[in-house]
Amino acid sequence: MEPLGPDPGFDVFSAGCPSRDVMQHITGRWGALTLVALADGPLRFSAVRRRVEGISDRLLAQTLQRLEADGLVRRHDLQSSPPHVEYALTDSGARVTPKLVELISTLEAVMPQVLAARG
Amino acid sequence: MEPLGPDPGFDVFSAGCPSRDVMQHITGRWGALTLVALADGPLRFSAVRRRVEGISDRLLAQTLQRLEADGLVRRHDLQSSPPHVEYALTDSGARVTPKLVELISTLEAVMPQVLAARG
Repeated sequence: MEPLGPDPGFDVFSAGCPSRDVMQHITGRWGALTLVALADGPLRFSAVRRRVEGISDRLLAQTLQRLEADGLVRRHDLQSSPPHVEYALTDSGARVTPKLVELISTLEAVMPQVLAARG
Repeated sequence: MEPLGPDPGFDVFSAGCPSRDVMQHITGRWGALTLVALADGPLRFSAVRRRVEGISDRLLAQTLQRLEADGLVRRHDLQSSPPHVEYALTDSGARVTPKLVELISTLEAVMPQVLAARG
């Protein structure tokens, strides 16, 4: 691992970043990342999977189904051929997700202190 | 369950509230609640346990140890007899926790829509 500079560039979406470890302690494992992945607009399954590093097809499908059942994510069939499906935040999802974004941003900002605490 | 009025009063700290279920999907199970329990000042173990409904002694001890190892919570020995220990947010914990408070507050606010989505 590179020595920590003034901007350590922690990124909770990156599988190797220690901020993800802390993220799993203080927020849900995959749900939060999936919601935040959709923050900038609808994405297809494969695009979400690329954004959320380290998630398996099966876990992502489960996560999206749960978020859809909670009314936070909506599945949108593009009615094309071959069939394409996109996932988007609902109004509820769009209210919750900016708070997750702020939480993740703050978490990333305190990561130097977290690593220092771990010694 | 009471019919939903204009102010359904969802409370993620209450074991029976359905917002906790959603909370477990989009945030961590116990870490977030433990941090938020400490938002208003240091508390003793038993006080945290009372605030975080449904957590066991063992789970709370594990959760506090993890948060302490991450430098988000500090254990403070009051040097009294009989011995008393308090738990408090560190500076890092005090930066992260308001974001969790906002997230929980927003989650509670969208719970009517979540329940409606579940049908």
